[in-house]
Amino acid sequence: MGETYLGADLGGTNLRVALIGEDGEVLLSKRCPTPRKAGAEVVAAALSGLAKECSSEYGSAPRGFGVAIPALIDCKRQEIIRSPNLPRLDGSELSQMIARELDIPVVLENDANAATVGEAWLGASKGYGNSICITLGTGIGGGITLDGRLWRGTDGTAGEIGHICVEPDGRQCGCGSRGCVEQYASATGIVKTAEELKTKHPDSALSGIAEVTSLDVYNAAVAADGLAREAFDLAGRYLGIMIAGLLNTLNPDVVVIGGGASNGWDLFIDSTRKQVMENAFKRPAERVKLVRASLGDSAGVLGAAKIASLRRVEAGLPIR
Amino acid sequence: MGETYLGADLGGTNLRVALIGEDGEVLLSKRCPTPRKAGAEVVAAALSGLAKECSSEYGSAPRGFGVAIPALIDCKRQEIIRSPNLPRLDGSELSQMIARELDIPVVLENDANAATVGEAWLGASKGYGNSICITLGTGIGGGITLDGRLWRGTDGTAGEIGHICVEPDGRQCGCGSRGCVEQYASATGIVKTAEELKTKHPDSALSGIAEVTSLDVYNAAVAADGLAREAFDLAGRYLGIMIAGLLNTLNPDVVVIGGGASNGWDLFIDSTRKQVMENAFKRPAERVKLVRASLGDSAGVLGAAKIASLRRVEAGLPIR
Repeated sequence: MGETYLGADLGGTNLRVALIGEDGEVLLSKRCPTPRKAGAEVVAAALSGLAKECSSEYGSAPRGFGVAIPALIDCKRQEIIRSPNLPRLDGSELSQMIARELDIPVVLENDANAATVGEAWLGASKGYGNSICITLGTGIGGGITLDGRLWRGTDGTAGEIGHICVEPDGRQCGCGSRGCVEQYASATGIVKTAEELKTKHPDSALSGIAEVTSLDVYNAAVAADGLAREAFDLAGRYLGIMIAGLLNTLNPDVVVIGGGASNGWDLFIDSTRKQVMENAFKRPAERVKLVRASLGDSAGVLGAAKIASLRRVEAGLPIR
Repeated sequence: MGETYLGADLGGTNLRVALIGEDGEVLLSKRCPTPRKAGAEVVAAALSGLAKECSSEYGSAPRGFGVAIPALIDCKRQEIIRSPNLPRLDGSELSQMIARELDIPVVLENDANAATVGEAWLGASKGYGNSICITLGTGIGGGITLDGRLWRGTDGTAGEIGHICVEPDGRQCGCGSRGCVEQYASATGIVKTAEELKTKHPDSALSGIAEVTSLDVYNAAVAADGLAREAFDLAGRYLGIMIAGLLNTLNPDVVVIGGGASNGWDLFIDSTRKQVMENAFKRPAERVKLVRASLGDSAGVLGAAKIASLRRVEAGLPIR
């Protein structure tokens, strides 16, 4: 039997832990509701508990545990800098707590970075050295691989492409800035656009709903509602502006788009592609493949497990 | 005597060739007017001619010749993709022509990339692994080093940060896009802003000038003219938006700003710093050093010579 590793994805709703084989097989997977208001001790206990269940049920001794967290992380110091959804994790010793419990090496990583590694290892960007992975959800996360390694930057905070400004006097963002692409192209951003467009489209089905949800906008867009289509067009356009800047800057092989809001792919991608061709230089725009993520919800746990399997965390991550 | 290399910088006005020692000493330097309307043969002859003069006068046999060109270059194929100022170089065999004449290896590189390598080797970003170099001139060029190597991207076109969009419905750019930072923060961009601000500032000294130059705006700003100050503020602001996006994306150690228009440093940098703090995440914004380039006009020739000294061009450039 080959080596096994544990991967976890600490989502806003569920916490998932999986036991992963060395070729990326999901051997066993467990989940429980995320203890959102709890402190680091409770979160560590939940993660360790599921990890132990996976290991004992499968009868395997995993070599390491990678934990994907929706937070800004200094990976070298294993420090949680800012965790907007689980604020009690900020500055906690989560990594050490879990390691004490399980007695194996634990690595915390930003969830979008973990998904990026997952897609590069086994998914849509497999085989490409230079990739950008965009996670469209409630917010927008991102990750970058360069020469086959996750690019973390000097402090490990690189890849926060959801907070690239695409509208200088635009919507206020939770990060403190204005006009971040997340404010327009995330599920939340699309809802905000839909709300703003109600006066322009009084006849839209959405104009009769007091508080529109992203599912409402999606369903209306599928039914060819003008307001909803315009909201997705605008999301696609801003996403294209952001991607074009990244193509001019990094000249990657592939851009992978995943996350829950990427289910609206057919509704925004034409607008995105058009904007990319308009805004980016011809060579990098023609070079890049713009594709959907292929691992779905599993990208995070797979990537986290892969990260745990790579010893030299500080030197970057040779994914292949 | 140590090894020597040749470096050239093909500027809009002058063409400069220098003989460089292995520690970066400029042993000899020659220049002539750039044959702007000429074809590749004439440009190759001018470069080869100055190179031969340098070598014979100094009595040295240089090992390679790096040529910095204001063009989009596929470095791996040594192909000039797009050379806006010297359009007759597009698709030419410039590299091969020079190599035949001099019988040494010749490497063409984008001028801003060459300046980036120069600054990282001997200038303001020396000793930093992760740097972004911004060249503010008629346009805006850029270069990126990651882990001590020039980042060229999949085709060698990376680093075109002057064409990051910072104003979605903004000014038309020569690249075909709209709202590129180059349209606001380059010398040309500042002049455009000044022209636009004339009606708002009828009493400005600039409002009496039919066709304002960047030097006019600079001099007026130094004399505390309201219009000119506002033009520099806006340039600084847009530059800050662009830099903030790059900090969130790449989390570098240092951002170096050079080029002719960086002479207005005191007039725009406060506005740039303010915008960076507002738009970027705290950690990468506090981490980064924002500094002026230190090699002046020599960054390009020095960087080009350094690039020529590095054998494994395709594998990237270990600068130190």
